[in-house]
Amino acid sequence: MSIETNCQKDSGFSAMQMGKQSLLFYNPVYIMASAAVVGDKEGQGPLGEFFDLVAEDNMLGAETWEEAESNFQKNALRIAMRKAGLVEQQIRYLFCGDLLGQSMASTFGTGTLGIPMLGLYGACSTCGEALGVGSMVISAGYANYVACVTSSHFASAEKEFRYPLDYGNQRPLSACWTVCGSGAYILSSDKTEHARARITGITTGRVVDYEIKDSMNMGACMAPAAADTIKTHFEDFHRSADDYDKIITGDLGAIGREALIHLLEDDGFSISDKHTDCGIEIYGWEEDETKASSCGLDSHSGGSGCGCAASVLSAMILHKIEKGEWNKVLFVPTGALLSKTSFNEGRSIPGVAHAVVIERM
Amino acid sequence: MSIETNCQKDSGFSAMQMGKQSLLFYNPVYIMASAAVVGDKEGQGPLGEFFDLVAEDNMLGAETWEEAESNFQKNALRIAMRKAGLVEQQIRYLFCGDLLGQSMASTFGTGTLGIPMLGLYGACSTCGEALGVGSMVISAGYANYVACVTSSHFASAEKEFRYPLDYGNQRPLSACWTVCGSGAYILSSDKTEHARARITGITTGRVVDYEIKDSMNMGACMAPAAADTIKTHFEDFHRSADDYDKIITGDLGAIGREALIHLLEDDGFSISDKHTDCGIEIYGWEEDETKASSCGLDSHSGGSGCGCAASVLSAMILHKIEKGEWNKVLFVPTGALLSKTSFNEGRSIPGVAHAVVIERM
Repeated sequence: MSIETNCQKDSGFSAMQMGKQSLLFYNPVYIMASAAVVGDKEGQGPLGEFFDLVAEDNMLGAETWEEAESNFQKNALRIAMRKAGLVEQQIRYLFCGDLLGQSMASTFGTGTLGIPMLGLYGACSTCGEALGVGSMVISAGYANYVACVTSSHFASAEKEFRYPLDYGNQRPLSACWTVCGSGAYILSSDKTEHARARITGITTGRVVDYEIKDSMNMGACMAPAAADTIKTHFEDFHRSADDYDKIITGDLGAIGREALIHLLEDDGFSISDKHTDCGIEIYGWEEDETKASSCGLDSHSGGSGCGCAASVLSAMILHKIEKGEWNKVLFVPTGALLSKTSFNEGRSIPGVAHAVVIERM
Repeated sequence: MSIETNCQKDSGFSAMQMGKQSLLFYNPVYIMASAAVVGDKEGQGPLGEFFDLVAEDNMLGAETWEEAESNFQKNALRIAMRKAGLVEQQIRYLFCGDLLGQSMASTFGTGTLGIPMLGLYGACSTCGEALGVGSMVISAGYANYVACVTSSHFASAEKEFRYPLDYGNQRPLSACWTVCGSGAYILSSDKTEHARARITGITTGRVVDYEIKDSMNMGACMAPAAADTIKTHFEDFHRSADDYDKIITGDLGAIGREALIHLLEDDGFSISDKHTDCGIEIYGWEEDETKASSCGLDSHSGGSGCGCAASVLSAMILHKIEKGEWNKVLFVPTGALLSKTSFNEGRSIPGVAHAVVIERM
């Protein structure tokens, strides 16, 4: 590997700046423990048995949907901390985020646990943003343990972005279904016996706007950003799809997946036989093969939301890495930077995607 | 200085972990350039002449208030980059945030400039969060230049959090006035000739909730978090108010300032003769001395918003540090974690505050 760099190991730095947007970590970053808490529909999907907790009423004792989402976060982090053998006081930074206005699920969720909090917003890419910044902090020696937690909830998201659920409005086939779920990750600089995987590099995404305005086709809004980040990752690291066992986007769904593959083919990168998407995996492909662009459980194009990539990483990706089925995965959570106000003002829906290189221990 | 630490300089790390929540940077972080763009009311205040651009119509050519706020951000960053002699392609990370749902002012503001973006949310403390994470990234050698930009706009904030402006609703004397403004900062690892100041340490805040529910008294909501962060900072660094020329909170306003001073006195820390608040400074004290808790320009308790601390840091604090009037300042932006939905559901308004140590070159 021969790569130009403007940062030297000898000067005591903790990572090599790769190309325009990437970092290769010198000091190892371990995913020490993780947990995924999901709702009823997600529990019925193909990954059902791998989640740590399935809340059959989607509420976990809460009185409002927003409070329910907060409870998903709190439970996910508590389970992850228990697996890591840690308590709140040992976690130096909490990186958290969600889709709601002013990140309220995080404020009243993991924010209440008293851990120094750095709130993040990257829409459904926030899991990638949190793992990226969390890895930077661990690799630099700023903390021994950090927690990264993100969440989404179908009902709170529909209320925030679209129509009251009671309207029973029709959803076009291009729409995704916001996942009820939260994923929590404890990152550490120590190689512990049960560490699930290690993070060896990141590529931080930029905002990409193809001027798409259809909030019922989020896959199309996000695919250009996913393509930009994956292409930049390949260029920055001098890698291709051949270097990975799997390239896994966050929540493009079946329709966004097609757009991504075509966009990268236009740039000379072929990823189709290595690619899958958390939004597809969480509900599975539609059994009726004539519906080529549909996912299971009536989810239409697939799952979405900050909780989608976050719960699938713990329940599927890390599981397969631990079993040795995959050795090296490029995990690319994707976000659609939609707000109700900007949408109503006729603005487009730009996308952003952050890539994380996850490798077997 | 004799301090316990669990991080060694020798191991190549870039900072010392101080106490529970703080970092002391080994590698210097310079504020290479900054800019503040504000609206008409702010331009009329006592800092008017020190802002880089005053938008007399508060719109900067935009058709909506949200777009106006985006334009404030873009202009602030462009002016700061011009002062630093840099273009977008040389900035490795953009840390940005605002108060609107899904951080839309940032998405359509600085987010459009093509810089790898890490969106942050810490309400009005986001300027402190951005400078903190930005400093971590610079000190670790992950980037040579990063940009930190935050903004707020009176009209977009009132629309997001309170009443339509056309109602002309009454504001109680405890209310703050959301600043129309944006502040942009270029952080660098290189000591350039015109660097304005350096960042030597940070204390990351945690969420503090005194169960206050009055969105027209944000000072009271945030003062407990400011007190917690300042107290923790003193303990982590074994310092007191004597170590600083000034301790400057973000937007507590006149009422929040009183609460902060009393809370810290209860804990044995006296800061009253060293303290001021950006929300007070931006509009100035009320000339009528009988109104002891009021600030100027009919702002009532003072200024607030992500753009308040961000614009005052550039226009006042760094200015006085450069002149040698102050050598060492503890800058503590404060945030009220309010959302319209959580407020309407009867939830409290927790606070958070992040401290940044800024020293003369």
